[in-house]
Amino acid sequence: MPPGITTLAADTPTLSAANTGFMLICSALVMLMTPALAFFYGGMVRVKSTLNMLMMSFISLGIVTILWVLYGFSLAFGSDVGSFLGWSPDYVGLSGIGVTQLWDGYTIPVYVFAVFQLMFAVLTPALISGALADRVKFTSWALFITLWVTVVYFPVAHWVWGAGGWLYEMGVIDFAGGTAVHINAGAAALGVILVIGRRVGFKKDPMRPHSLPLVMLGAGLLWFGWFGFNAGSWLGNDDGVGAVMFVNTQVATAAAMLAWLGYEKLRHGSFTTLGAASGAVAGLVAITPSGGAVSPLGAIAVGAIAGVLCAMAVGLKYRFGYDDSLDVVGVHLVGGVAGSLLVGLFATGGVQSDAKGLFYGGGLDQLGKQAVGVFAVLAYSLVVSAVLAFLLDRTIGMRVTEDDEISGIDQGEHAETAYDFSGAGGGAALRTAGSAQGSTAAARTKKVDA
Amino acid sequence: MPPGITTLAADTPTLSAANTGFMLICSALVMLMTPALAFFYGGMVRVKSTLNMLMMSFISLGIVTILWVLYGFSLAFGSDVGSFLGWSPDYVGLSGIGVTQLWDGYTIPVYVFAVFQLMFAVLTPALISGALADRVKFTSWALFITLWVTVVYFPVAHWVWGAGGWLYEMGVIDFAGGTAVHINAGAAALGVILVIGRRVGFKKDPMRPHSLPLVMLGAGLLWFGWFGFNAGSWLGNDDGVGAVMFVNTQVATAAAMLAWLGYEKLRHGSFTTLGAASGAVAGLVAITPSGGAVSPLGAIAVGAIAGVLCAMAVGLKYRFGYDDSLDVVGVHLVGGVAGSLLVGLFATGGVQSDAKGLFYGGGLDQLGKQAVGVFAVLAYSLVVSAVLAFLLDRTIGMRVTEDDEISGIDQGEHAETAYDFSGAGGGAALRTAGSAQGSTAAARTKKVDA
Amino acid sequence: MPPGITTLAADTPTLSAANTGFMLICSALVMLMTPALAFFYGGMVRVKSTLNMLMMSFISLGIVTILWVLYGFSLAFGSDVGSFLGWSPDYVGLSGIGVTQLWDGYTIPVYVFAVFQLMFAVLTPALISGALADRVKFTSWALFITLWVTVVYFPVAHWVWGAGGWLYEMGVIDFAGGTAVHINAGAAALGVILVIGRRVGFKKDPMRPHSLPLVMLGAGLLWFGWFGFNAGSWLGNDDGVGAVMFVNTQVATAAAMLAWLGYEKLRHGSFTTLGAASGAVAGLVAITPSGGAVSPLGAIAVGAIAGVLCAMAVGLKYRFGYDDSLDVVGVHLVGGVAGSLLVGLFATGGVQSDAKGLFYGGGLDQLGKQAVGVFAVLAYSLVVSAVLAFLLDRTIGMRVTEDDEISGIDQGEHAETAYDFSGAGGGAALRTAGSAQGSTAAARTKKVDA
Repeated sequence: MPPGITTLAADTPTLSAANTGFMLICSALVMLMTPALAFFYGGMVRVKSTLNMLMMSFISLGIVTILWVLYGFSLAFGSDVGSFLGWSPDYVGLSGIGVTQLWDGYTIPVYVFAVFQLMFAVLTPALISGALADRVKFTSWALFITLWVTVVYFPVAHWVWGAGGWLYEMGVIDFAGGTAVHINAGAAALGVILVIGRRVGFKKDPMRPHSLPLVMLGAGLLWFGWFGFNAGSWLGNDDGVGAVMFVNTQVATAAAMLAWLGYEKLRHGSFTTLGAASGAVAGLVAITPSGGAVSPLGAIAVGAIAGVLCAMAVGLKYRFGYDDSLDVVGVHLVGGVAGSLLVGLFATGGVQSDAKGLFYGGGLDQLGKQAVGVFAVLAYSLVVSAVLAFLLDRTIGMRVTEDDEISGIDQGEHAETAYDFSGAGGGAALRTAGSAQGSTAAARTKKVDA
Repeated sequence: MPPGITTLAADTPTLSAANTGFMLICSALVMLMTPALAFFYGGMVRVKSTLNMLMMSFISLGIVTILWVLYGFSLAFGSDVGSFLGWSPDYVGLSGIGVTQLWDGYTIPVYVFAVFQLMFAVLTPALISGALADRVKFTSWALFITLWVTVVYFPVAHWVWGAGGWLYEMGVIDFAGGTAVHINAGAAALGVILVIGRRVGFKKDPMRPHSLPLVMLGAGLLWFGWFGFNAGSWLGNDDGVGAVMFVNTQVATAAAMLAWLGYEKLRHGSFTTLGAASGAVAGLVAITPSGGAVSPLGAIAVGAIAGVLCAMAVGLKYRFGYDDSLDVVGVHLVGGVAGSLLVGLFATGGVQSDAKGLFYGGGLDQLGKQAVGVFAVLAYSLVVSAVLAFLLDRTIGMRVTEDDEISGIDQGEHAETAYDFSGAGGGAALRTAGSAQGSTAAARTKKVDA
Repeated sequence: MPPGITTLAADTPTLSAANTGFMLICSALVMLMTPALAFFYGGMVRVKSTLNMLMMSFISLGIVTILWVLYGFSLAFGSDVGSFLGWSPDYVGLSGIGVTQLWDGYTIPVYVFAVFQLMFAVLTPALISGALADRVKFTSWALFITLWVTVVYFPVAHWVWGAGGWLYEMGVIDFAGGTAVHINAGAAALGVILVIGRRVGFKKDPMRPHSLPLVMLGAGLLWFGWFGFNAGSWLGNDDGVGAVMFVNTQVATAAAMLAWLGYEKLRHGSFTTLGAASGAVAGLVAITPSGGAVSPLGAIAVGAIAGVLCAMAVGLKYRFGYDDSLDVVGVHLVGGVAGSLLVGLFATGGVQSDAKGLFYGGGLDQLGKQAVGVFAVLAYSLVVSAVLAFLLDRTIGMRVTEDDEISGIDQGEHAETAYDFSGAGGGAALRTAGSAQGSTAAARTKKVDA
C-alpha cells in the first residue's frame, strides 16, 4: 500500500485469482515471521528465559488477531476520521464484508487485505519484546500489547497506509512498514525500557545467546517470510513493482549482512553468526520502506549503510546505559529511520512512484516528507508507549521479582524450563564419546565402512 | 473439496495458471506439515525417544507417497464403487493421466489435485504416532501405516470427499479434513493404544518435553502449513471462499490458543508454552471442517470452544488410564469432533454453501448430518485400527522390549541418539560461565563496548 | 529453463500476474534452501564446528547475491559469447532492466527470472561447504566462493541454461540443475578436498552428528524449498509441466528415502534418521535434472536407484581416504550424475519435450547427450575448483591451525560457541528429574489430573 500512486487497476477491477492466491501465500509468510521472531529472540537470551521470550511473541498471535477482527481493522483501515483514525462499522467483527467484495481499487477481496494487514499488526508488538527480555510479567505484557496496538499501532497504520491518513496524504513513502512497523516498534521498545529499567546484572554478567542455531533459524525464517511482507505489500503482480521490491529485499539484506560482518571484523576481530543474523535483519528493516523506490544498486547502498549504522548503534546501550536487551532499538529503530530517510536520497522515480530522491535530481522535497514521517511516528510511539508502561508499572507492575529474574522467568512465569535432558533412561542423556553406534550413522561418521 | 456445492467454473473450465500455481504452493505447505508434526511431537518426548518420534512421521512421507501413486489416489478419488471406495485404472501409478488433463469441474490439472491430496494422506497417519510414543517397533509402525492408509484412510477420504462417497452425497460438510483427517487419526490412535497399552512408567515417572523450543518450532510450522491445508482445499481463488477459510483459520487458532491458556491459568496456575502450542493446534483442528461455513466471529467461537474442550480432554487419559502419550485423542479427536459438530450450529449459509446451522435458522438438519459423519468415521477408524494393531501385535509384535523402552527406543531401534555434545575438542562441550568471547557477540551481550 | 523446447507463450507474451506471483514465491522457497542447508550440515558436525558450518552457507547469501547483481546474471544469462559465457551490459548491476520488461519468450519480468536464478547461484557454492567441515579459514572460504562462482558457476549456468550455451544447444536435459548445481558442487567439493586434505582424526575419532533434530529440520526445509526449485524452473503454469515436476519431486524423494533406509537396514542393521535425511536429499538431487522428463513411475525408479547408489557411495570415502566430511560427493555428485544419466533411460517424450530415453524407444541418443553434459561439468568443476583451492592454499592458506581445529573452529574463527547453558540462574541449567512443575505441562505429562 504505498502512498502517492494510482491503484493497480483503476477501471472497475474484478477479482484476480492470481493476486488473491499470491496475497494469501504472502499472508502465510508474514504470519510465519512472528514464530520466526520468537526463535530469533529466544535463541539470544539465556536458557532460563527462553520460553518467556517465545511466549511474548506467540501471545501476540493470539491477542492481536482477535483485536484486529473486533476493531483493529476498522481503526486502521476504516473510513478516515480526522486524518488520525479510521472507522467503518462494517469492518467491526469483519461482519459486514462480502465474500467477494474487493478492496477498493484492487483486485483482491477485502478479507485478503484484512488478513494480510492482520499479520503486520501481530508482528509489530512482538518486535518490541526483544528489548524487554528476562524481566516482564507475562500478564502485564499481554495487557501492554492490548493497549499498545489499540492506541499506537492501529492509529499509526492509519496515518501511514490508510486513505485519508495524514502521512499517507502528505506523500510519505513507506512501502511495507519502515515507519508503521519498525520505527514504531523500536521507539516503543525504547519508551518501555526507559520506564522499567535494566535487567539484573546488565553490564556485569555475561548474557550470551544460549543457542545460536536457534537464532540463525529465526533469522533464516524471518528472511524467508519477509519476502511476503515486502513483495506482498504491492497487493498484486499486474506490473513488476512487487518483483522489484522482492529483488531489492534480497539485495539489501545481503549487503547489510556483509557490511555488519565487515564492521565487526574491523572493530572486534571476528565474523560472528550473531553479526550475520543481526546484519541481515538490519538490511531487511531498512529496505522495508525503501525497496519500492530504489534500484538494485540503490538497494546495495541502503543495505550497506544500514548494516554499518545498526552495527554501530547496538553498542550505544552500553554507553548510555539503557538495557535494549536484544537490540530492538539498535536494529529496528535505527534501521527503520535509516531506510525511511534514504528513500529521500535514493528514490529513482521509476518504480513505485515518480517521487525522486536527492541523488536522482529530486531535491530535498521527498527527504523532508520522510523526515516528518520518521519524527511523527518515533515521537508518538516513544511517548505513548512510555506512558502505557508507566501506568501499568504503577498499577499491576511490569517486572517480575528480582528473585524470579535471577532464578529464571521461565520457571516463575510459565512453570516450565526450555530443555529437559533428564529422561534419558539407562543410557546417558547426551551421548558421550565411548558409546557405540551400529549403522549408517556410524558408517558415515566413523570408519566402519573402510 | 467441500461437498454439496457447485464447482468453481462449471462452463468448460480451462487450466488456470493462477489456481495451479496457488495449489502447488499449498501442496508444498501441506508437505511441510509432516516434518512440522515431527518436530512438534519430537520435542514433547523425552530425549531418549526423540529420533523415533521424528522417524514415525518422516517414514510416512516415504511409504504413503508411494502407496498413493500406486493405488491410493485411485481408491480415494477414482470412480465411485458402491459409495464406499473409488477405482479408476488410469489413476493406478498415475499412469493414465494427461499432463494438462483437468480435475473434473476445476481449473487445475489432475496431477495437482492428486499431489495436494497426497500430502493429506501422508500427514494423517503421522498424526497417529503421537499417541504411540516411546514404545512401538519401527518396522511394525511402517507396516501399520501401510495397512491403515489402505483400509482406513483411502476409503474414508472417498466417503468424505469423493464424488459418490456416501458422506459426501449426504451433505456432510468437511472443508479440509475434520473427519477424514483429524477424527480419523484421533480415533485410530485411541484404537491402537487400547491394544498396545501404556508406556513403562505412565502416571509414575515424569515425562516432560525434552525441548519446548522444538515443540514451538513444530507448532509454528504447522500453523504456517495449515494455511495451505485449509485455504487450498477450495482448489482455487476464483471467488473469495478460500480467502474466508484463510481468515477463519487464523482467527480460530488465535482464539483457541487464548482459550487454552486461560483454562490452564485458572486450572493449573500458569500460562505454559505447551499450552499455547496445544491450544493453537486445537484451534487449527476445529476450524478445519468448519472454516468455510462460518463467519470470523463464528470462527472465534469455534476456536474458543475447541480450545477449552481440548484442554479439558487432555486430562482424561490420567482419569481413565489410556496412555494417549502426546494427546492425539485429546486434541485431534476431540477438536475434530467439536469442529465438525459446530458446523451444525454456526454455519451461516453464506460462504461455501447455503447450508445453515442451528444458530442461523437452519434447524437441526445440518447438525444431524455432521453427527452422522462424525460417528461413522470415528467408529470405523477406531474399530479397524484396533483390529489392525491387534493382528500386528499377535504376529510380529507392536512393542519394543521393556529394556529397550527404558534405555531408550532411539538406541534400540535406530542405533542413534538425538544429541551428542561430546565432540567439543579442547574446550567445553557447552560454554560455561568463565569462558571468553571477543567480538560483537560479546559486545552485544557484555559490556565491552561501554 | 529446460533446453530443447519451445517457449511457453510464443505469440507476444504479456506479463502474467499468476506466473509472476508463483515465481516470486518459488524464489523465496529457493532462498530458504540455503539456511535449510546450513541446518542440515550444521547438525551433522560436532558441536565445536556448528557455527562455522552455518556461516559457510549464510555467507553465500551475502556474497553471491551481490556478485550476481554486479556481474553474475550477465555472465550466466547475458547474450551468448562463444557458447561459453554470456554478457549483456544492461544486466550489469541489473541497471538497464525495465520494471515490466519480460524475460524473452516468457510471461514474467526479467527481474523475476534474475532473482529466481540468483537463489540457485547462492545455494550451489553453499552445497560445497559440507565437504570442508571443521577445517577451512572463514576468509579463505569467502574468497573461494567469490572466485568459484565467477569462473565456475556463472559460466556453467550459461552452458546449461543460457540461450547459446553449448550444452543447452546440444539438447542436454537438465530441468532444474542436476549438472549446473549438483554435479557442479559435488565435483568442486571433491576437487577442494583433494587439495586441502582430511580433518584431524578422520577415520580415527568418532565424528557423530551433534544434533540429529537439527539435521532433520534442515532436511525438512530443504524438501519444502525444493518444490520451488524444481517446479519453479518451468517459469510458469500455463501448461501442466511444472506440476508434473512437482509430483515427481515428491515421489522420487519418497522412493529414495525408502531405498536408502532399506539399504542401510540390510547393510548396517538399523533404519537411521541420518539415513532418512540423506536418502531424501539423494532423491531430491536425482529428480532435479530428470523430473520434467519422466513419469511418476519413472520417478519412483529414479529415486530408488539414486537412493541405493548414494547410500553405497558415501562409504567410498573411507575406502579411498578422501574426507568428504558430510557426503557432498556421495550425495550431490553421485545423485546428480545418476539423475542426469537416467533421463537418457526413462524420458517418456511426453512431458517437457519429445526427447525419449532408451526404455521408451529413444535409443542411446539422449543418453549420449546426457553423458556429455555430465562429463563436461564434472571435469571442468573438478579441475578448476582444485586449482582455485591450490592457489588459495599456497597464498593465504585454506586451513585453520591444527590447534584451532582440535579445540574447535567456532571459537577460533568466530569467537563464539553454538550453545551456552551456563546462564541458568538459581535453578539448574537443564531440568533434572526431581524438579517440580505445576501447570498443564505437568498435567499433560504427569498424573496431576488423575
